[in-house]
Amino acid sequence: MPTFTHHVLICGNRRAAAHPRGSCDPDGNDALRNAFKKSMKEAGFGSLARANHAGCLDQCEHGPVVVVYPLGIWYGRVKVEDVPRIVQRTLVGGEVLSDLVIDDSCLNNPGCPHRGGPKGPAGETP
Amino acid sequence: MPTFTHHVLICGNRRAAAHPRGSCDPDGNDALRNAFKKSMKEAGFGSLARANHAGCLDQCEHGPVVVVYPLGIWYGRVKVEDVPRIVQRTLVGGEVLSDLVIDDSCLNNPGCPHRGGPKGPAGETP
Repeated sequence: MPTFTHHVLICGNRRAAAHPRGSCDPDGNDALRNAFKKSMKEAGFGSLARANHAGCLDQCEHGPVVVVYPLGIWYGRVKVEDVPRIVQRTLVGGEVLSDLVIDDSCLNNPGCPHRGGPKGPAGETP
Repeated sequence: MPTFTHHVLICGNRRAAAHPRGSCDPDGNDALRNAFKKSMKEAGFGSLARANHAGCLDQCEHGPVVVVYPLGIWYGRVKVEDVPRIVQRTLVGGEVLSDLVIDDSCLNNPGCPHRGGPKGPAGETP
């Protein structure tokens, strides 16, 4: 059998409410992952596709964060209502959704303005 | 910034001791992930490589399980002492370690003999 054709990793990180980096799953209820499981099943995906819990994916300021492997597409600010569209258009159709994709200038960039780092707008006190 | 060049997902699933599918992290101490973090740092990997906790990756009978994206290399029965070798030879060297890689006949295969499924040696009562 091959590796997963669609391996969706959904950040389930939960921090204290006041933490400056926020939480991808503040309620800890796995709602986003459950929405992926449901939509992927409805789309007919079988055992070679998986919606997987992940620990912190370190793009917290863009959360809730999801990465789709092996494509390597990173989405941010993902809401439950976005999930059927991601499944149909990205997982089935191979399309990158421009309103959800984390910008190249932000992905893995500690200087990303959303992080409030030294180069960010809130970065006077890194 | 680009996506991660080396995104190592380490299953941290923990089940009840008697569960037939076992646990990738039976002690729940993240020892394998911590070993990856340490070895990757020692090898000089920076912010574009990440050792990440993952929920169940569904290759339980081959656990502890690790997958390296974007390469899509799946390793099973990974021990803490294997980690420096994985980091040096797979992450740095790009080599697939034949003694650790999950066999194609097993990966994502419910009929894999290690699963004790209908086609497995323990599969009389699936």
